[in-house]
Amino acid sequence: MPAAANRVFNFSAGPATMPVPVLEETREALLSLGDSGIGVLEHSHRGKAFLKEYQEAVSLIREVGGVPDDYEVLFLQGGASLQFAMVPMNYLAKDATADYLVTGSWSEKAVKEAKLFGNVHSVCSSKDKNFNYIPTERKYSDKPAYVHFTSNNTIFGTQFQTEPETPGDAFLVCDASSDIFSRPLDVSKRGIVYAGAQKNLGPSGVTLVLIRKDLIGRGKGDLSAMLKYSTFAENESMYNTPPTFGIYVVKLVVKWIKEQGGLKAMHERNLAKATKLYKYLDHSQLFKATVTDPNSRSLMNVTFVTGDDEQDAKFIKFATGKGLDGLKGHRSVGGMRASIYNAFPQEGVDVLVAAMREFEANA
Amino acid sequence: MPAAANRVFNFSAGPATMPVPVLEETREALLSLGDSGIGVLEHSHRGKAFLKEYQEAVSLIREVGGVPDDYEVLFLQGGASLQFAMVPMNYLAKDATADYLVTGSWSEKAVKEAKLFGNVHSVCSSKDKNFNYIPTERKYSDKPAYVHFTSNNTIFGTQFQTEPETPGDAFLVCDASSDIFSRPLDVSKRGIVYAGAQKNLGPSGVTLVLIRKDLIGRGKGDLSAMLKYSTFAENESMYNTPPTFGIYVVKLVVKWIKEQGGLKAMHERNLAKATKLYKYLDHSQLFKATVTDPNSRSLMNVTFVTGDDEQDAKFIKFATGKGLDGLKGHRSVGGMRASIYNAFPQEGVDVLVAAMREFEANA
Repeated sequence: MPAAANRVFNFSAGPATMPVPVLEETREALLSLGDSGIGVLEHSHRGKAFLKEYQEAVSLIREVGGVPDDYEVLFLQGGASLQFAMVPMNYLAKDATADYLVTGSWSEKAVKEAKLFGNVHSVCSSKDKNFNYIPTERKYSDKPAYVHFTSNNTIFGTQFQTEPETPGDAFLVCDASSDIFSRPLDVSKRGIVYAGAQKNLGPSGVTLVLIRKDLIGRGKGDLSAMLKYSTFAENESMYNTPPTFGIYVVKLVVKWIKEQGGLKAMHERNLAKATKLYKYLDHSQLFKATVTDPNSRSLMNVTFVTGDDEQDAKFIKFATGKGLDGLKGHRSVGGMRASIYNAFPQEGVDVLVAAMREFEANA
Repeated sequence: MPAAANRVFNFSAGPATMPVPVLEETREALLSLGDSGIGVLEHSHRGKAFLKEYQEAVSLIREVGGVPDDYEVLFLQGGASLQFAMVPMNYLAKDATADYLVTGSWSEKAVKEAKLFGNVHSVCSSKDKNFNYIPTERKYSDKPAYVHFTSNNTIFGTQFQTEPETPGDAFLVCDASSDIFSRPLDVSKRGIVYAGAQKNLGPSGVTLVLIRKDLIGRGKGDLSAMLKYSTFAENESMYNTPPTFGIYVVKLVVKWIKEQGGLKAMHERNLAKATKLYKYLDHSQLFKATVTDPNSRSLMNVTFVTGDDEQDAKFIKFATGKGLDGLKGHRSVGGMRASIYNAFPQEGVDVLVAAMREFEANA
């Protein structure tokens, strides 16, 4: 059973399960943050109490994420979907080209947004096999403004093992929404990293952006204030009222990651959880992983099927009865998806494997 | 003393004090929403448990706010500042003109954004007197695309008593961030009402938008998905992951408003609180309200000064010692500001008046 009484194992793809100590600390802060007599939702973003939380969030992110000094740590809103637009809006001129690695629905949405602002070149695509692999054959355009990739594909259960190369001066843009801080991250190889918080970092409604400082000033100038990275960089993410609660919870989550041993320890733990699942799936007669290429498999989202929709539905019902929630796969893949982000406990994976074994034995 | 132990009276302009029963219910939902075994931050936005919260939020907003059926109730992110951009981006053609009533810094920011997209005509401005009144002389342009106003001016302590008129077919856009649901609202006279939640509705990070359905399809077509109202209307505010926690808390706050007797009861209560403060200020020899015109005075933000910066600072310190927090005025006005939104208790106003009386007696 999970740590707190009556909790179920939540395999949701995001919003997703969070560390129990973070939830407990958050609970205590609702009526009074520390001994301030004012709850965390009620503190002015300009007041000392919240500014302390904000500053701790930034420095923990720098420390745990190994974010170099020449990068800004920004908090935005609108999720990755708004970043799909902000990146080309700021950095793709009308007659220029940006290169996109197309590895799933989110990359496709990012491409669609970029096309509103300039030209898009597809470096590679795994659409031919319903995005069940990370392509290794890649062709870049001549002088791309930047190269964009989705480091983990939540829906299709694939993940880049290393960042793609970039031709010439192009900077790399990484949508890391579903694997940020799940493993060591070489920020210095990326110009921009963005991530909606709701998988590995906290609640939905806050987007973490790590951006190289020299890029800030290179964004287009005639944009709306809320759509320029410079606005956020120049105002410590407080040009207007930021999502204070989200930033507070992100701070607690990153502090928790640090206490677990940091990104390397998280990675080892995530590798152990995913390996256990894939190992079972590769030997099962009933269940099989939808991603067969070991170099493409995600450690965050393990997608699997029986090959029979009715059987899938039966298993999901069976698993729910065992306290395993949120296993239904995305409609584009079907079957099951076990999202096992940082905060998902090892015990939950054990219970899932046991449930699959039991179901298979009786199938 | 406030209801819960160790709570102080929080006069913050936003994020601002919230109803204690809402905070208590939220606290209980953190580790498990109802008996789901999954906390409110962790539920998938596509799951039954959150969808129930979302649907309740929408129907409570419709009921309490008297929102007609031909309006959409949408939840966005980015605060009023993103709406400053989205309104003209969607509805102001390059060669068209929009009319703005300029009654403070927020209106000015809205104007600045609109100028990126088309022409702006200033209907009136109270800048000549540091925005300490709501102008009654107004001149509209010939055929404005829309008319925009800020119903309450948080910084300067002014508030429109009724909505401005609109010439011809122009629809009215209302930034109601700091007075939404503080008094009865005739939504049908407005094409769009938007409000950051962090004053009267909930935490920062969620923006409520009420928009007339016929306007949805009239927005420009070639915009980024996250910047079109149609995207939110067509996807029940869930084109991407919405700020689930914010929507949940907004639901609880609107339910609380309903339990208090709805908008009419809120208005009576807010009127009583503000009247008590203004009455004291109008008779004080030491303190005076910065807004003297009774028809311009805000019921939400009562701004006042002694006329002497040192005395102001002394009073703020004195008040803090009495458990009165967040009274420092915005730098553009100076002095003090008592933000007394819906959730701010009558007792807090009594304590403030007593503190002013005591300070004045010893001054």
